[in-house]
Amino acid sequence: MAGSFLRRLFGGGPAAPERGVPKLLSLCEALLAESGEYASTAIARDALATYQGLDERDRDAFFDALASHYSPAPEAVAKAASAYQANPSPANFIALQDVVEPQRQELFRRLNMAPGGTAALVKMRKVLLKGLRARPGWRVIDADLMHLLRSWFNRGFLRLERIDWRTSAMVLEKLIDYEAVHAIRGWWDLRRRLEGDRRCFAFFHPQLPDEPIIFIEVALTHGMSAHVQPLLDQRAPVASPQQADCAMFYSITNCQEGLRGISFGNLLIKQVAEELKREFPHLRRFATLSPIPGFRRWLEEAGEQELLAKIADPAWHQGEVPETLQRRLMQRCAHYLLNAKQGAEPLDAVARFHLGNGAALERLNWLGDTSESGMARSAGMMVNYVYWLPEVEKNHERYFREHFIAASPPIEKLAREAPAGPAQKKGAG
Amino acid sequence: MAGSFLRRLFGGGPAAPERGVPKLLSLCEALLAESGEYASTAIARDALATYQGLDERDRDAFFDALASHYSPAPEAVAKAASAYQANPSPANFIALQDVVEPQRQELFRRLNMAPGGTAALVKMRKVLLKGLRARPGWRVIDADLMHLLRSWFNRGFLRLERIDWRTSAMVLEKLIDYEAVHAIRGWWDLRRRLEGDRRCFAFFHPQLPDEPIIFIEVALTHGMSAHVQPLLDQRAPVASPQQADCAMFYSITNCQEGLRGISFGNLLIKQVAEELKREFPHLRRFATLSPIPGFRRWLEEAGEQELLAKIADPAWHQGEVPETLQRRLMQRCAHYLLNAKQGAEPLDAVARFHLGNGAALERLNWLGDTSESGMARSAGMMVNYVYWLPEVEKNHERYFREHFIAASPPIEKLAREAPAGPAQKKGAG
Amino acid sequence: MAGSFLRRLFGGGPAAPERGVPKLLSLCEALLAESGEYASTAIARDALATYQGLDERDRDAFFDALASHYSPAPEAVAKAASAYQANPSPANFIALQDVVEPQRQELFRRLNMAPGGTAALVKMRKVLLKGLRARPGWRVIDADLMHLLRSWFNRGFLRLERIDWRTSAMVLEKLIDYEAVHAIRGWWDLRRRLEGDRRCFAFFHPQLPDEPIIFIEVALTHGMSAHVQPLLDQRAPVASPQQADCAMFYSITNCQEGLRGISFGNLLIKQVAEELKREFPHLRRFATLSPIPGFRRWLEEAGEQELLAKIADPAWHQGEVPETLQRRLMQRCAHYLLNAKQGAEPLDAVARFHLGNGAALERLNWLGDTSESGMARSAGMMVNYVYWLPEVEKNHERYFREHFIAASPPIEKLAREAPAGPAQKKGAG
Amino acid sequence: MAGSFLRRLFGGGPAAPERGVPKLLSLCEALLAESGEYASTAIARDALATYQGLDERDRDAFFDALASHYSPAPEAVAKAASAYQANPSPANFIALQDVVEPQRQELFRRLNMAPGGTAALVKMRKVLLKGLRARPGWRVIDADLMHLLRSWFNRGFLRLERIDWRTSAMVLEKLIDYEAVHAIRGWWDLRRRLEGDRRCFAFFHPQLPDEPIIFIEVALTHGMSAHVQPLLDQRAPVASPQQADCAMFYSITNCQEGLRGISFGNLLIKQVAEELKREFPHLRRFATLSPIPGFRRWLEEAGEQELLAKIADPAWHQGEVPETLQRRLMQRCAHYLLNAKQGAEPLDAVARFHLGNGAALERLNWLGDTSESGMARSAGMMVNYVYWLPEVEKNHERYFREHFIAASPPIEKLAREAPAGPAQKKGAG
Repeated sequence: MAGSFLRRLFGGGPAAPERGVPKLLSLCEALLAESGEYASTAIARDALATYQGLDERDRDAFFDALASHYSPAPEAVAKAASAYQANPSPANFIALQDVVEPQRQELFRRLNMAPGGTAALVKMRKVLLKGLRARPGWRVIDADLMHLLRSWFNRGFLRLERIDWRTSAMVLEKLIDYEAVHAIRGWWDLRRRLEGDRRCFAFFHPQLPDEPIIFIEVALTHGMSAHVQPLLDQRAPVASPQQADCAMFYSITNCQEGLRGISFGNLLIKQVAEELKREFPHLRRFATLSPIPGFRRWLEEAGEQELLAKIADPAWHQGEVPETLQRRLMQRCAHYLLNAKQGAEPLDAVARFHLGNGAALERLNWLGDTSESGMARSAGMMVNYVYWLPEVEKNHERYFREHFIAASPPIEKLAREAPAGPAQKKGAG
Repeated sequence: MAGSFLRRLFGGGPAAPERGVPKLLSLCEALLAESGEYASTAIARDALATYQGLDERDRDAFFDALASHYSPAPEAVAKAASAYQANPSPANFIALQDVVEPQRQELFRRLNMAPGGTAALVKMRKVLLKGLRARPGWRVIDADLMHLLRSWFNRGFLRLERIDWRTSAMVLEKLIDYEAVHAIRGWWDLRRRLEGDRRCFAFFHPQLPDEPIIFIEVALTHGMSAHVQPLLDQRAPVASPQQADCAMFYSITNCQEGLRGISFGNLLIKQVAEELKREFPHLRRFATLSPIPGFRRWLEEAGEQELLAKIADPAWHQGEVPETLQRRLMQRCAHYLLNAKQGAEPLDAVARFHLGNGAALERLNWLGDTSESGMARSAGMMVNYVYWLPEVEKNHERYFREHFIAASPPIEKLAREAPAGPAQKKGAG
Repeated sequence: MAGSFLRRLFGGGPAAPERGVPKLLSLCEALLAESGEYASTAIARDALATYQGLDERDRDAFFDALASHYSPAPEAVAKAASAYQANPSPANFIALQDVVEPQRQELFRRLNMAPGGTAALVKMRKVLLKGLRARPGWRVIDADLMHLLRSWFNRGFLRLERIDWRTSAMVLEKLIDYEAVHAIRGWWDLRRRLEGDRRCFAFFHPQLPDEPIIFIEVALTHGMSAHVQPLLDQRAPVASPQQADCAMFYSITNCQEGLRGISFGNLLIKQVAEELKREFPHLRRFATLSPIPGFRRWLEEAGEQELLAKIADPAWHQGEVPETLQRRLMQRCAHYLLNAKQGAEPLDAVARFHLGNGAALERLNWLGDTSESGMARSAGMMVNYVYWLPEVEKNHERYFREHFIAASPPIEKLAREAPAGPAQKKGAG
Repeated sequence: MAGSFLRRLFGGGPAAPERGVPKLLSLCEALLAESGEYASTAIARDALATYQGLDERDRDAFFDALASHYSPAPEAVAKAASAYQANPSPANFIALQDVVEPQRQELFRRLNMAPGGTAALVKMRKVLLKGLRARPGWRVIDADLMHLLRSWFNRGFLRLERIDWRTSAMVLEKLIDYEAVHAIRGWWDLRRRLEGDRRCFAFFHPQLPDEPIIFIEVALTHGMSAHVQPLLDQRAPVASPQQADCAMFYSITNCQEGLRGISFGNLLIKQVAEELKREFPHLRRFATLSPIPGFRRWLEEAGEQELLAKIADPAWHQGEVPETLQRRLMQRCAHYLLNAKQGAEPLDAVARFHLGNGAALERLNWLGDTSESGMARSAGMMVNYVYWLPEVEKNHERYFREHFIAASPPIEKLAREAPAGPAQKKGAG
């Protein structure tokens, strides 16, 4: 019955038992034709199982079909738009909306009814995003998925949960897999990060009970941390959280590539800060210890070849470093953070995130991260962004209105000292 | 800053502290302008609190503003439609979708971020629906709310829960309030309906933890019940569910008027049937004991004045009822159920629901409900619809394809015997 | 096999299928003989079911058998005691303990393995206690049950739970049944007692998940309540708990008669006070509004016939009460609370409880409880005991060391003013 | 105040701030003297904290004091025993019980009121047991702890929980620590043991929520496993549990040394078998794959030096093993299992456990466990005990009545073939 035109498309004869893409498209048609929710659930389950069984080539073919067969007919759209222009009545507007909404959306809504449907669609978008550059036609699929996922993952549906050693191994294992900033080297490393002087929180969604959406790692310290290696040391003694006066956010990881473009970090940081303030009223500072991931690349683009030559040897920082080199690097880095731009915003992605959230640039930390990737991306430097609660909203507003960057006097001074270097010539600043 | 044009609209001068609708519209503007999720949550909370404080007149004014100020400009729509017609590229299609989606949707999405936001929006739609007939312009608001609620209340997000005497009083109280078919007369009536020979199930949504969405009451009986009063008798002895061979669905209630138009009943009945089959494998029949709510009205519209005269006295059924009267009423009722139509579907709303789900008309029960409303609406009759699991899918499909009504031979015979009465003349059959 | 001697005792022949007490005693023997826990569980279940099916006469016979058949043989005890006296070695002491412990204890321990065993044994003791006066021989059974229940209901095993409208109806129903101080008149009365300006807490035991052990009702008020009727008024408006400065403990109920003699109230009050202090740091006073249940009876025993004659008419307090009468009654009452004794402790049971916990007598409230029972037992008066946290431990210690009663100056003054009345002559003071 | 005599004992002067054992004994005295539960809880907490801070020498001194100071006076016991002998009345019996019960029991009951009290007492007994051989006087302490722990860990209080990858890391870590039969080599080994073709269950007690009491590991297999190494292989592919017809119990571990002597295994195995039967109704066999831990030692004691010489080289089984050697070893092993005794029961501890539970000896497996410990203790052999549900109760009864060992014909045949070897001469069979 359903999907006959698609069957013809894919050349399936009536005698051939359907498999692969033709079967999947038949199921999609049947799902859209079905009027009972109960039957829909069963068809949705079959459809997702069939999708999950496709190999890469077939998946591409399925996406091609989704992109080309479920968009509205241009004539119908034009007609509805004309009617609305002639008379912008509620009836005409609703009719227009109906015409413009692609059937794909309804298809995805129905696929979501299957057990595990939401997780499957999040994964489907992850795969889709990988192919998007090569297949721009798929952007219409992405727009529909994004539209629905944005509704389903509305922040009102998320719940903040503390992660600790009482959390299920299934969730903890995901943390080990996902941690992108400072890789977790196995269960005992993770255990140290969940001890009494640490906190970890994640957002969860009711439909993905075993899947963190985003998580943050916090160290409770006395004084603001300048170096990340001590925080990552598995054998570091466990301090008393009652003595701590700082909460250091040293890692924040988005877990679901399929939710790219839906932002949760701002909300997470602030809810976590509130939660910590409740548990430890004596905390005086909420700050990050963050990488400066674009610094070294920017040095290259800015033509700082001379400076780069001095740090070309991977071991450059292990002996004594000339003070002038240190000074020069720190000046360039302060300049990069304050003045290098992408449009009107900072060029550095991490800076964009925290400054946009209302944090302030507080301190540059020399050799704050001496790991291989820390040296390669940030020339070993780290930066503390401070979330100073009474200022956060004001900073956030000024950032969005005036692209104003809140920064401490020492950082501003460093940046001012930065000599007109080659960077200036190439105009990246 | 935000909402200045709206403030002018509503005459608020700069000196006047904002209150009521102007304040609410300012908050809506601010919410749409806000770029951080954390701040949004706070504004959304304020906006909902302000909305909840409005009196009826102000609420109407707010809905008027929502309807008129957040729909897309007809010219912009026409332009995007033309571009899409000229070149139906992904980019043009996505641009078209962006133009057509009213900002109201984003506004509601952001309001949903407030604590309790989903519940508040469900209630907002309930209020809106009440005024819709008088204010057809509000239909655009309803379309947007419906679009979002349909996503948020996607069946994949619902969870089936058993309701029993261990359930929280907060939820049980709602059952007492909501039960629409056979009113629950207090806590001890409810308690009887949750005893060992009964089952009650509801769908819940993660965002409305204390609010049932829809619930169903089931009696486990030996033999298919023909009369509802024994099922509602608080003092009826509790039978052993192990002896039961029938599950009688004797009441099903949609609880959230604000979700009208989103159907959950089909899924609920079938999931409950599965659940019961698992707990009591020896159950042989899943059937309803249902009212025929439109029967008496139909008799009137069909011009059966002579018949109606015989049942005009409220006590007509209390003495001995002439066999010819009983026969005649039952014949007319069978005819009504099988032949009276609204379009191609049955005229009776309950029949439409169960037959559309795939159930079959099994038996007419004389004096099945002698309550006041049962006499007034159904002339005292009740009907059993049977969910015969192996046939349900086939019935459901034939109903939707051919408008076929599955009915037992005795009911079909009764309907055939119905004399060509006045109904025929008026063509309602 | 097992129980053959008992069968003979009860005259059961080998052909007679066992029922009632003989069957139960056989099961007890089998249970004691069994070496595998799994089989024991099954036998224990059968034994409890058989016990629960006994009528009253058979239950008495069973208790008689329990009392007479499971105590150790006096000679064996004497022998073990002699050995221990001769040589108080560990081995001799352990042997002595083994001999002295009645087999009943092991029997009860094994009955406890059945599902619901703990609840069944608590109920068994309740029944036993009723018959104890008439059957003093059962005291040995009670001693064994008490020994075990004291272990099983060790306070370390109890968990404090808040009771509110989210609590299961099964538990709430029990509150309605059990409340002994100020009867709960149905669900809506209970609901008022669980509103935002009230708190209710109970202790639960893991083995009795649906059974509160003891519960306390608290009103959050502004100023210390003097009258109980306003607190019990279902239509009283709900106040804001944020404005409250007092927590009034107005009712505390032990639920399990079968746990009589194991005291939980002291711990409950203090844990609840801590819990409330945490939720409402601005609370300044924790006080009770308590009956004086023995006052009127004491007036009778003290020969205050003249005074009693003035309050003999049930309506005596409804018109204007002569000031001298009020004064005289309050003086006598203060005297009763401070000076009437049972041994070295107060004669009034409620006073013994709160003063022993470390509370102080704060205020006498004229016409604090005008209900029928309030008038009949306390001549309408109520008293506030204050739990002044910094003094509680000291008061408690002095009470137990010196039988010191902490009382406010006004109450002490009232008591001093009490004229040498007839009470003095009879020496009850 | 409290404990002055003890202070004198330990030489503490009034000026010396109490520490260590004197402080602890003062706290114990205070705890016994205290009449309010709330204060008791605080003292109990202090006492346990003080105990936990003791070094080994002080702990020994504390146990010595516990053993010597809290047992009843022999004269008082003798007097109460005489009274009871003269008149075995309830009053005399209860008085006797009171005298005989050492105050230590009350002390431990009160210590149990502290948060974490139960866990602390379980650990205290673990330490005590270690010193018991050297300090037989401590046996009276052990008797009291055992008496209470037996009540508190009554099987009615335990709940069976499935352990899987959703279990908290805190509990899983304990499994890794405790597993005694086949050591778990880290998290990925554990993960494999919790995959879809495995099951793991544990008993938990409400007071020790993060501490398994005993746990069992099960493999769902097709056919009865003969070799344990494939079950322990982390890289073994995961089979479908739906295809399995056997549940192989391949490891069972008691976790709490402090509960030694309280047996949970019988109940666990049978509840797990029921649970598995419910989940997988097609399972046909419940069997163990068990070591024979005493076999090789018995060979030595039985003087089988000639046989032992042949397996002295650790690599003896890695090349080809002469058929006569295999035959001879298996015969001796069958003989050991069936005929070597400790009293009337089997000499082998694992055999005693499973045969006492009602299992039957089913099959000897040549080279069933080639691990180092498997070779060292069992000469590489393993045995399957089968829990054949319809026979389990009968076997269990015959075992306890007649010391009957249920065994399969092949094992009995093997044992009969065992030549009169040196074992016979030494009479160990």
